[in-house]
Parts: sequence; C-alpha cells; structure tokens
Amino acid sequence: MKKGKRTWIFANKPSLISGAAVGAQMEKEGPMAPSFDYFFDDMRAGKLSFEMAERAFLQKACNIALEKAALQKEDIDCFLAGDLMNQIISSSFTARDLPCAYLGQFGACSTSAQALLVGAALIDSGFAEKVLCATVSHNASAEKQFRFPNEYGIQKPPYSQFTVNAAGAGILSSEKASVCITAATPGRVIDIGITDAFNLGAAMAPAAFDTIKTHLEDMALNFGHYDLIITGDLGRTGHECLMDILSDAKMEFDSKRILDGGLLIYNTHTQNVFSGGSGCGCSAAVLFVHYLPLLQQKEIRRLLFVATGALMSPVSMQQGESIPCIAHAVSLEVM
Amino acid sequence: MKKGKRTWIFANKPSLISGAAVGAQMEKEGPMAPSFDYFFDDMRAGKLSFEMAERAFLQKACNIALEKAALQKEDIDCFLAGDLMNQIISSSFTARDLPCAYLGQFGACSTSAQALLVGAALIDSGFAEKVLCATVSHNASAEKQFRFPNEYGIQKPPYSQFTVNAAGAGILSSEKASVCITAATPGRVIDIGITDAFNLGAAMAPAAFDTIKTHLEDMALNFGHYDLIITGDLGRTGHECLMDILSDAKMEFDSKRILDGGLLIYNTHTQNVFSGGSGCGCSAAVLFVHYLPLLQQKEIRRLLFVATGALMSPVSMQQGESIPCIAHAVSLEVM
Repeated sequence: MKKGKRTWIFANKPSLISGAAVGAQMEKEGPMAPSFDYFFDDMRAGKLSFEMAERAFLQKACNIALEKAALQKEDIDCFLAGDLMNQIISSSFTARDLPCAYLGQFGACSTSAQALLVGAALIDSGFAEKVLCATVSHNASAEKQFRFPNEYGIQKPPYSQFTVNAAGAGILSSEKASVCITAATPGRVIDIGITDAFNLGAAMAPAAFDTIKTHLEDMALNFGHYDLIITGDLGRTGHECLMDILSDAKMEFDSKRILDGGLLIYNTHTQNVFSGGSGCGCSAAVLFVHYLPLLQQKEIRRLLFVATGALMSPVSMQQGESIPCIAHAVSLEVM
Repeated sequence: MKKGKRTWIFANKPSLISGAAVGAQMEKEGPMAPSFDYFFDDMRAGKLSFEMAERAFLQKACNIALEKAALQKEDIDCFLAGDLMNQIISSSFTARDLPCAYLGQFGACSTSAQALLVGAALIDSGFAEKVLCATVSHNASAEKQFRFPNEYGIQKPPYSQFTVNAAGAGILSSEKASVCITAATPGRVIDIGITDAFNLGAAMAPAAFDTIKTHLEDMALNFGHYDLIITGDLGRTGHECLMDILSDAKMEFDSKRILDGGLLIYNTHTQNVFSGGSGCGCSAAVLFVHYLPLLQQKEIRRLLFVATGALMSPVSMQQGESIPCIAHAVSLEVM
C-alpha cells in the first residue's frame, strides 16, 4: 500500500476457485435463476423458524461451494462470514460445523465484498491457503427484525427494496486459477443524512461513488479498464442516484457497464420487489454464480465488484439517527 | 502459516504503540481505576440514550489513543472495531468521524483480539501502516438489548457477569516499537451445549482452552514462555472452569499466571458484579491501559491475550439454541 492510498494490491493474486448460491421461490422466478445452484421450495427450508432457515441457506451454499471445488471442510483455513441477523447468528452457528478459524464480519449488505477483501489479504500474505467467504439474507427474518413481520402487510414506498432469500459462498485459494483478486479498496463510512430506513439505495449511492472513485484513482485506471462494474445492492433508486453522481462529477463512464445486483436478481417489472433486491446474499449470489462463471469462461475479463452496506440498526433509526453507509470494492480479473 | 496450523506468525512484528481506555463510575471504583485514562461521571455521558453514550465512550477512547500516539485521524489507514449492539452501531457511527477504511468486526467479547489479529495481519503484509483497533460495551445498553432494562431489577444468578461500561482502543503500527504482536491464533467455534444465557463463562472456557492449546502447540511453546496469559472475559465461574479443563488435560501451568479480565477490572468481593466483568470493552480496557504499560516498562515481557466471545443472540436463545463460543489469541512481546 502506498501512503495516502486506500487500495490494496495483491502481488500473489489470490484466486477465486469456486462459488455457489442458493435461493427460494422468488429467486427461482428471477432472471438469475438458471445460474443458481439450488432452490429451497419453501422459505422455512423445513426448519422451525425463519432464522433457522436462513442458517440452512448459508450452510447449503457453503457445502455446494466446497463440493464444486472438490474440497472438504477440513481443507479450509478460515471462514469469513456475516449476515444481517443481530449478532450475525446465521454465520456463527454455521461456523460451529467448520473446524477452521472463524472471523465474523459485519458490513450489512457490503459484507460479501468485505469477506472477499479480508480473505484475499490473508491468502496474499500467506496466513491462509483456502478461505471460505459467505453471506446470507432472508426476507422474512430480516423484515421481522428490521421492520415488521411480513404477515402485518405493511405498505412500502416504491424506493424500498426486497431482501433476498439467498446465500452466496465463494472459496479463495493460494493456488493459481483463471480468476484472481488483483486488488481491493476497503470503504470508508459516508453518511449524507438520510433518515428514511426504506431509502437505502439513495443513502448508499454516495458510498459506492466514493469507493469506485478512490479505487480508480489509487490504481490510476479509468472506467474503461473494467468490462463491468457490479454494485450491490442499490436497487433502481440507488442505481439512478449513482448514475447522477457520476455524471455530476463529470466522470466518463458507460452506463451499460455499471450494473446492480439488486436489479439483476429480480425482474423488477413483473416481480413485486419495489426498487429491487437487497440483503447480504444478493450481491454475493449474483457474483458467485453468474459473473464468476462468465469470468471463468473469459466472456468478461475484468470485473469490479462493489458491495454496498447501510450500517444503521432499528434502534439507531428509532433514535432519529441518519444512515452511515459503506462500499467495499474487489477487482476480479482473468489471468 | 504452516499447513495444518491455525497460528499466524508476524515476520515484520507489528507494534502496539498506543492504548487507551475510558470507563464510568463502576470502573472508577474498581482495582484497575488508576490505569484508566478517563471516567464519565454518568452512564449517559451527557447523551440522550444509552446507545449514544456507548458511542461517546468509544469515540473518547479512540481520541485518547490517537493523542497518546501524537497522531491525527488522518494518519490512520484502517479502523477495525466492533461492539455488542445489534448491527454494531457504536462502531459504525464512530467510523463516520474517521476518514479511513472501516471493517466492522463481530466476535462478541472476543472482538478486541479479533481486531488486533486482523490489524496485525494487515500491517505485517503491508496493507496498512497504522490501524486503530477498538471495542466498547455499556451495561445499560447491553442489558436492555440482551436481557431486560436495568430498571426492572431482574434477579441474576451468581455465575452471571456484569457488562462493563468501558471502551478500549489501541493503535498498531508498522514502525518499530518496544511492544510487538509476534503471533496470533484465530479461534474456531466451540459449543458444548449450554443453553443458559447467564452462564457465559462456563460456555466460553472450552473455547479459551482450545485456542490456548492450539497456540502453544502451533508455536511449540509451553505455558512457561508467557509471563502472563490474560483471558477475557470468563469471570470467576469461567476462570474456574478453564483451570479445571487445563488440569484435566494434564497440562503444566502456573495458575497464578493465568488471569481474567473480568476478575481484574472489578473487585468481585465488594462490587456487585456477580462472577465478574464482561463485555467487549472489558478485556480491551485491561489490556490497553494496564498490561500494555507493564510491557512497555518491561515489567513483563511476554503476554498472551486470549479474548473470548459468546456468539448467541436473544433470538437464538429464545429459540432454544445453545451458545457457540470462540476465543482469539494474540501474543504480545517486548522486543
């Protein structure tokens, strides 16, 4: 790292060797469905509670990621995971079944990228050879915890987002493979003073902008370097905000090459998801089962993954606080 | 890292150059009081809510740690912090005032060691030059969230612990200094099936044992290598459990050189704290303002800091789950 820069450059090019995602009915009806590895028939996944179901989603994604890489649990050195549940119980209870080190991550919906960049740093520096990075979210457990149980039927504004029922898991390795993490830019907290907990896309867009701008400046790159920039999850409102901020900043970019996980995972015209998807599992699923294969098949060669998180809690909202937001960027390139 | 080992050895010896801790009235009446940097007169710290007070504690500790190191906020590359609040709002809102990268950590009361070991890895590998590691806990906000508001006056069992009102902050640096982090052992999750949320000391003791044993084996050391092992926070019950487990394992250790942060921060005979202190801020405060100076003055030369965390949530307890626990170890040595 050079003084005054926030970007980490990975000299040893940690590889992303495997990715998996699981979802439920809503995700099965979305445009990303063919890429998913598994769908649970019901949101309870046969469990007694939505929280237990969320954990089952995460465990399933981790197991499939291991299978795809032909690895056993015992081959993993470190499990980096997080979720939206209070005290990230989905991750910690999943860690109980793994014999390796566990470091709980919290970055709300930015957790997928946070886990990847910490994992890449651990592999790059030789502290681990295989790192399992995973996140999950569940619509019913999240709504119940952050807002109201779904059964109440609370009306939502059009700029709100739908927390996905999905888990994504990826395995980083010190072995050479076609898709590598070449650099990463951890985010800083940006809070523009939004106090409406439904308006997360708009709250997070400035953080996405700050991290993308910092990443390009630190690396002396322009937008053209990346075939795609995948943000996640700003939804339609947040994505439009980001386009406006980029335009206002007079940056040269191709809007067709900046996509958002929250808009990719659902059909926002036919599925009742308001401004799009959100939740820890959304951007992780989109990356691990849709864009990782495209990179592996060399259909795209350079992707900047920018996961965004809104770091408020129900208590902070009730106490009138605004929403601190963050975005972490991970650069994936075909070697 | 050698295959099959969990311990990270830091070749570049990241240094711990500054530490600070703040508390409130209970901590001011405890045996560690002379070491603390600052005490808030009231638990609300002049704020409107206990949650806002908790944040003020964390901000104060961070500011003092910066002052002690003669550093500005702008000198910090990365802020690694966590707390017990849902969505770790104390840490994320504190990060809002810092211009650097922020990676939210969650390991319950093990967060202090988790932040130190991730920070040491980032410095050792050149991804950061200065890392601010901090944790906080607040009795009233924690009781309200995890159990009942203090005003209810719920009776507690003698093996329960008292969440400290304290924040601890430490600064890691790539510059050479007298106290270095030479190695660290990230923990794995251990769950022995305890379902009583007051009995956290007993639940966490096996995790402390597992991490200490793994650390000593990975490093080919015996207990005698360390002048002190500071666990945190097992309390009296958990500490006694750990002594029993060590004895049962036929390990050779000097019980006088294994101390617990939860027993050090309060006088458990005269203060009404049941089995001792707990909370993210407890072990951090004890390390940063009491043992760091002892290392700097070379009164002790080798200390193993083993912070323990109980990773349940109120929801997981209500759903009848047992308590997954973890312990992370950090080796501090005088160079």
